[in-house]
Amino acid sequence: MFSKEKYLNRRKYLIEQLPSGIVLLPGNERVPMNYAGNAYPFRQDSHFLYYFGIDMPGLTGVIDVDSGESYLFGDEVTLDELIWVGEYPSLAEMSEKSGVSKFFPKMRLENYLATALQLKRTIHYLPPYRADRLLQLSQWLSFTPAEVKEHASDELISVIVNQRSVKDADELNEIELTINQVTSEMFLTALRMSEPGIKESEIVAAIEHIAKAHGCRQSFIPICSVNGHYLHNESYANILREGQLLLVDAGSESKMHYATDLTRVFPVAKTFTTQQAEIYQLVLDMQMAALQMMKPGITYFSVHMHACKVLVEGLKSLGLMNGDTDELVEQGAHALFFPHGLGHLMGLDVHDMEDLGEQNTGYDDEVSRSTVFGTRYLRYGKKLKEGLVLTVEPGIYFIPLLIQQWKKEEKFKQYIHYEQIERYLNFGGIRIEDDVVITNSGCRILGNPVPKTIAEIELLKMP
Amino acid sequence: MFSKEKYLNRRKYLIEQLPSGIVLLPGNERVPMNYAGNAYPFRQDSHFLYYFGIDMPGLTGVIDVDSGESYLFGDEVTLDELIWVGEYPSLAEMSEKSGVSKFFPKMRLENYLATALQLKRTIHYLPPYRADRLLQLSQWLSFTPAEVKEHASDELISVIVNQRSVKDADELNEIELTINQVTSEMFLTALRMSEPGIKESEIVAAIEHIAKAHGCRQSFIPICSVNGHYLHNESYANILREGQLLLVDAGSESKMHYATDLTRVFPVAKTFTTQQAEIYQLVLDMQMAALQMMKPGITYFSVHMHACKVLVEGLKSLGLMNGDTDELVEQGAHALFFPHGLGHLMGLDVHDMEDLGEQNTGYDDEVSRSTVFGTRYLRYGKKLKEGLVLTVEPGIYFIPLLIQQWKKEEKFKQYIHYEQIERYLNFGGIRIEDDVVITNSGCRILGNPVPKTIAEIELLKMP
Repeated sequence: MFSKEKYLNRRKYLIEQLPSGIVLLPGNERVPMNYAGNAYPFRQDSHFLYYFGIDMPGLTGVIDVDSGESYLFGDEVTLDELIWVGEYPSLAEMSEKSGVSKFFPKMRLENYLATALQLKRTIHYLPPYRADRLLQLSQWLSFTPAEVKEHASDELISVIVNQRSVKDADELNEIELTINQVTSEMFLTALRMSEPGIKESEIVAAIEHIAKAHGCRQSFIPICSVNGHYLHNESYANILREGQLLLVDAGSESKMHYATDLTRVFPVAKTFTTQQAEIYQLVLDMQMAALQMMKPGITYFSVHMHACKVLVEGLKSLGLMNGDTDELVEQGAHALFFPHGLGHLMGLDVHDMEDLGEQNTGYDDEVSRSTVFGTRYLRYGKKLKEGLVLTVEPGIYFIPLLIQQWKKEEKFKQYIHYEQIERYLNFGGIRIEDDVVITNSGCRILGNPVPKTIAEIELLKMP
Repeated sequence: MFSKEKYLNRRKYLIEQLPSGIVLLPGNERVPMNYAGNAYPFRQDSHFLYYFGIDMPGLTGVIDVDSGESYLFGDEVTLDELIWVGEYPSLAEMSEKSGVSKFFPKMRLENYLATALQLKRTIHYLPPYRADRLLQLSQWLSFTPAEVKEHASDELISVIVNQRSVKDADELNEIELTINQVTSEMFLTALRMSEPGIKESEIVAAIEHIAKAHGCRQSFIPICSVNGHYLHNESYANILREGQLLLVDAGSESKMHYATDLTRVFPVAKTFTTQQAEIYQLVLDMQMAALQMMKPGITYFSVHMHACKVLVEGLKSLGLMNGDTDELVEQGAHALFFPHGLGHLMGLDVHDMEDLGEQNTGYDDEVSRSTVFGTRYLRYGKKLKEGLVLTVEPGIYFIPLLIQQWKKEEKFKQYIHYEQIERYLNFGGIRIEDDVVITNSGCRILGNPVPKTIAEIELLKMP
């Protein structure tokens, strides 16, 4: 946990920003895997972690905007339970660490909320992303499940998005330490292991091993695949073959559950082929161009569009496209090769605050989401400001099904040289991703550098 | 998956055993971890796996008891989705493998059920263990959440418990192969790694690595602890010290999600101390006595009680107890040292079918659950019969808090030598667990032997 003062200050900001009422912040419960007693590893709610810091199930936080006080509702571990679980902090200890003055048994929460409702006080809560939370809120507030969703507090969402988007030095430090101590080792291991004959499952097991041995978990289910062009790929069934590329998109959580999220691509052979190196360098150029441009005041939408233009310029010199670069990108012709966005906010969630709605975290009155295929998947388009942490993750993919579809529909046929693309049908995909903080004058990649240039990677692959 | 015939036969049994109506078997969905898009690894519902075998989210199975037909409801992956996920089996392929004649889009299920309700057909369903399932059933059947729980089908529970309790040769083979290829390697690795200075987290990471590299997951969150006396211990924060015991309770799932579940205890030093060896041998004696007794017709309750008597006899010769063994066990005095049950059913769930209620899986009119502390935690008390798979997991623990409590309450003070127990307060706990199938004349430990005797373990610990 951070210092008590940090949690007090974070809650103070909420109290100052909201006009009145109560903020209801339930923590997460355990989720059954195949029966109630066999749960998934517990993951605390990120908002609860942010405002209260306590990494345990069974707790609900309440912030009274009018009185300025915060409360915790939860049940003490009984002596009978202590016998089974051993040492366990008391509610008093937890409240103290979190700077909360009062704590109550869980059963009193229902009454507390009923009274608040009688007094017509506003109860601010966030839209629930888990079904058990939805049911719980429906019971507490006497709403139907549909009403629960409807009455989530837009005011609270807006204040939290503003607050959590900007990371302080402690938060940045948490992310950087994890990259340096855990995530970079995961990637160096994957690089060393990417040899012909090894299974994807063996590599993913090895990288998860590293995080787990440090007492950390993965921020998300890792991608570790020779089919990097399938963007949502959670299978690890392939055996690596000479000539393929291995794409690894993974990241350890810090012990306090801040995410890290990197992507690297390694040749299974000792070196990249010429074709691979050309595409790899182009992806790296896209990232470098983006990083050079990122600073407060610039929209991330324009950075995304700029990276797409670098892509189109590159594909033109490789003979895969022709035409006016600005126009091609405007119309989305590049999305055949780069159908996703340049990056997303990162923090306590790998897609930070995605539960509050991407429209709320990534767009505003100034920058609205594109409707063009590819560009519309950009998760964050707003102006950059100091303290934001974003991933920068351009990619180039040759997705046979998508190419087939576009070719059949003759999409951009005068600009895309489909006959040239034939040579890339077994290529796979390349993505390069780093975690970046916006500084007062530009941006900075978080953590020590993880090998990224062709020369660095090939050097490390040498026997 | 098993052969199509197996799933057809399993469903045929249900159809024959139920008088009429429809069996509604929803598969599981993905569960959000910290937002909808960041899910836990998918785990299919075990009943759905048993009757349909398909390991994917988004499906519901329906078995029409009256017509004898089975249906699958689910949605095909769209071309747009295929672009992201790559290869994906179609509903037609999945239905074929499962021996299901007809499949329909998911949106038709609501209508199908509404029609069945109008026709006053019985809709048999199981009590939901996940909140999303509860909400879904509540919507489909127009029940409140409380009514959903109330109207779960006792008839269906009873038939499924009978059917799933008895494992066939293919199921046994699945469990044995996993023990031989994965779980035993996990334990040999833990044994080799249990040296002073290493962290529990490093050992648990290594054993999870082994399962994952085989493409398997853990059946449950592993216990890997020098505090083996805390029975529900999911922390891995300790560093192993000379003189301690490391308790590892873990098991890989098979690829088809059959559980394995073993426990071993290793000395952190090269050898057990005399005190450790005495207690270890006594736990092993308890297990051996249980295994010798297990055969069709004997209740597992009586096996449990017998193991407890072996324990008391042993503790008497160690000078920790005295009195009449039968009476001590009857009254539960042994439970200070062995406060849990001897074992549980195992199959597609590590506690097989625990979602259907332990009363339904483990007890019947003949054998009812004890009310005595310790004995009442026995999860399975019924008569043994051929084909049951059970864990046999006696243990001896010195739980300081429990000892303190009993001593203060002067519980069994004439029979328990509390002053002698002082010498064991830092002992920890020992449990030895194997997975066992009941044969026609006795029982058999599943899988190749995993080192268990003091001599075997000390030999493997030699440099």
